[in-house]
Amino acid sequence: MATAGPGGPVALVGVGLIGGSLGLALRARGVASDVRGVDPAPGALDAALRCGAITTGCDDIPTAVSGADVVVVCAPVGAIPGLVHDVLAVADEGTVVTDAGSAKSAVLQALTPAERERFCGGHPVAGGEQSGVQGARADLFEGAIWFLTPTAETRPALLERVHGMVAATGAVPVAVAADVHDHLMALVSHLPHVLASALMRQAASTAPQGREALRSAGPSFRDLTRVAGANPRLWADILLSNRDAVLAETRRHRTQLADVEAALERGDREWLEAFFATAATGRQRLLDQEDTGGGEVVRIVVAVPNRPGVLSEIATALGHAHINIEDLHLSPARADEPFGSLALDVVGEDAAARALALISANGFGAAVGE
Amino acid sequence: MATAGPGGPVALVGVGLIGGSLGLALRARGVASDVRGVDPAPGALDAALRCGAITTGCDDIPTAVSGADVVVVCAPVGAIPGLVHDVLAVADEGTVVTDAGSAKSAVLQALTPAERERFCGGHPVAGGEQSGVQGARADLFEGAIWFLTPTAETRPALLERVHGMVAATGAVPVAVAADVHDHLMALVSHLPHVLASALMRQAASTAPQGREALRSAGPSFRDLTRVAGANPRLWADILLSNRDAVLAETRRHRTQLADVEAALERGDREWLEAFFATAATGRQRLLDQEDTGGGEVVRIVVAVPNRPGVLSEIATALGHAHINIEDLHLSPARADEPFGSLALDVVGEDAAARALALISANGFGAAVGE
Repeated sequence: MATAGPGGPVALVGVGLIGGSLGLALRARGVASDVRGVDPAPGALDAALRCGAITTGCDDIPTAVSGADVVVVCAPVGAIPGLVHDVLAVADEGTVVTDAGSAKSAVLQALTPAERERFCGGHPVAGGEQSGVQGARADLFEGAIWFLTPTAETRPALLERVHGMVAATGAVPVAVAADVHDHLMALVSHLPHVLASALMRQAASTAPQGREALRSAGPSFRDLTRVAGANPRLWADILLSNRDAVLAETRRHRTQLADVEAALERGDREWLEAFFATAATGRQRLLDQEDTGGGEVVRIVVAVPNRPGVLSEIATALGHAHINIEDLHLSPARADEPFGSLALDVVGEDAAARALALISANGFGAAVGE
Repeated sequence: MATAGPGGPVALVGVGLIGGSLGLALRARGVASDVRGVDPAPGALDAALRCGAITTGCDDIPTAVSGADVVVVCAPVGAIPGLVHDVLAVADEGTVVTDAGSAKSAVLQALTPAERERFCGGHPVAGGEQSGVQGARADLFEGAIWFLTPTAETRPALLERVHGMVAATGAVPVAVAADVHDHLMALVSHLPHVLASALMRQAASTAPQGREALRSAGPSFRDLTRVAGANPRLWADILLSNRDAVLAETRRHRTQLADVEAALERGDREWLEAFFATAATGRQRLLDQEDTGGGEVVRIVVAVPNRPGVLSEIATALGHAHINIEDLHLSPARADEPFGSLALDVVGEDAAARALALISANGFGAAVGE
C-alpha cells in the first residue's frame, strides 16, 4: 500500500547501519529527495554520500536539522537522550524529532513536556551482520516491526508524519507506550543476552570440562549461548539505557529460579511439572495468537476531538491490542467544528471489528469508511 | 575402525527410543545376535520385535538378564536407580550392567561398593523427534557422544566390554567421573531448559503485550525459548534425578543475575562491559578448543598394575582431557606378573602425545605400541 512519507527534508543524526539504511530506503522509495546526514565518526559522511544514503553531509546538528520535516537520531542508545535534547533545542517549531534506540523511557525522561510535543520515540527492530553504513541496505526494514512511542504531548500531525515515514520504509509501525516497549525489549532481548552471557561464563569457568559444553551440549545450550558476549560496550550501554525494565525482568527471572531451587530442595515433583506445564501452555497461547494475516484493507474513520493526545491514545491502544495501522491520515478540525477526522487503515475484517470496538470503548465515535 | 562388541546376549530393560535404537544398532552391525527386551508398557515388546530391535521379548527382568553379557537399563531417568539395583540383584556374576540415563550420580548412590563392581553408568547424548520404539533408528548414535562413568570399583574387564559395545554402535565413548557428567548436563541442558521455561512464563504473563514477544523478538528470545515447556513430566523427572548438580548450577546462575542487578543499580558500566567481555573470551576459548580432528590412529600401550580402578582412572583422565579412546583392549596380568597390558587407540599425533604425558603423570608406564 502506498503511504505518503514526509516529503520534505529528512535529517539523520548518525549515519551508521540504521541511519544509512533509512536514508537508502527513503531515497529508493522516492519519499525524500533531500536527506542530510551528520555524524562525528571520521569518514562516516563520505561513506554515506558514496553509497547514496544521504544527499548532503553536514558539519553540525543545527545545519543538518534546519528546515527538516523529520529528524531521526540514529546514534548509540546511550547518546540518544542528550542528542534528542540538542536537536529539539535548534529544530524548527514544525519539525518532528524521532530516534531509533532500543530503550524509550530514558529519552522521554530527558525531555520537558513542551519538548515532547515535537518528539515521538521510535525503535526499528532490525539489524545486520555488519555495523556501520557499510552494512546499510534499502530493504533493511522491509516487514520489520518499527515501534513508535508517542505520548499524550506528541502533536497529532507530527505523529502522523513519523508514522507515514516509517510505513514508507516498508516497516510495520506499531505504537505502544514507552514503558510497555521497554519491558518487552528487556524480556525478549536484553534479559536473554544477560542469560546467554551468564551461562557461557559458567561453562567457561567449568574447566577443563567446560569445553565439553560446546561439544556434547544439546541444541538448547548452543541456541542459548549464541549471543553470549556479543559487543560488550554496546550491551553495557543498552542495559544501562533500559535499566529499570531490565532490573524488573531480571528480578522476576531470578525469583523464578529461586522458586525452582526451593521446589528441588523439597523434592516437589508436582510443582516442577506445573512450572514446565505453564511454560508449555504460555508458549502455545502465544503461538496461537500469531496473526493469521491477510485480508482486505478496511478504512476506519474516527471523529477525534480537538485536543492533544487523542491520536497517541488511539494508536497505542490499537498497538497494545496487536492491531497494526497500515496507514493513518488526520484531517484536523476546522475552525468551526469541535471534531477532526482520523482515517485508519487496518487489514482484515476481524482486525477492523476489534479496532472499532476498542475505539468505541475508549469513548470515540468510529465507523467503517469508504 | 572395527571394535569388538560384547558378542554374547544383550538385555535391554526398556525398549523405547534409546533401547530400541541400541538393539537395532547392535543387530545391524552384527555385534549381538541375541537381544532380549523387557518393558512394562503394553505393546512395547511386540513393536520392538516387529521392527527388529529385539530378538526375544521377556516377561520379567530375571528372564531377560539371565546369562546376558551386558544389560542396558533404558528406562525413564527417575526409574533407573531402582531398576539397576533390581537387575544387579538377579544378574550373573559375569554380567555388566549399564544404563542410558541423563543423571549419573543418583544411580551410583543407590548401589553398594560391591554392586558397583559390575556396573558402569552410561549416557548416550542422542534423541529424536519421536519417542518410543517407533522413533528408533539403527544410526541414532552415529557420531554421538556416549558418556561412560566408571568408578574405582568397576571391574576393568567389564568396563572394557561396555566401552566396546558403545563404540560398536558408532557412538564416541567418553569416560568421565559421574559428578563431572552431572554438572556438565546441568549446565548444558538442564539449566537451559529451566531458563527457557522461566523466560516463556514471563512472556506469557506479560499480557497482552506478551504476544509481541514472539513477533518482535530478536533471535535470542526465539532461540532461548524453543525448548520451553517441553514434556513437563520428563523434565521434572530429570531435574529431580540430577538435583544436586542442577541446584549448584542454578545457584551459580542466580548469583550472576544478582551481580548484574547490583551493577545496574549502581550504574557500573565498567563491570557490565567486563561481564559481557569475559563471556566473549570464554566463548572464543571454548570454540578454539574444538577438535581439529583427523589424523592417524596411534596405539598406546600401558603397563597396568593388577588392582581395581586403574582402567577407570586412566579412561576418565583421558575423558576429562578431551582425548577420545577409539578402542580399548585389556590383557589382564598373568598369574606370575604384577602388570597387565592396556592398549588404547587414540586419533592423531597430538592426542597421542597428550595421552602419553597424562598417563605418565598419573604414574603408569606407557609407550606408543605397534
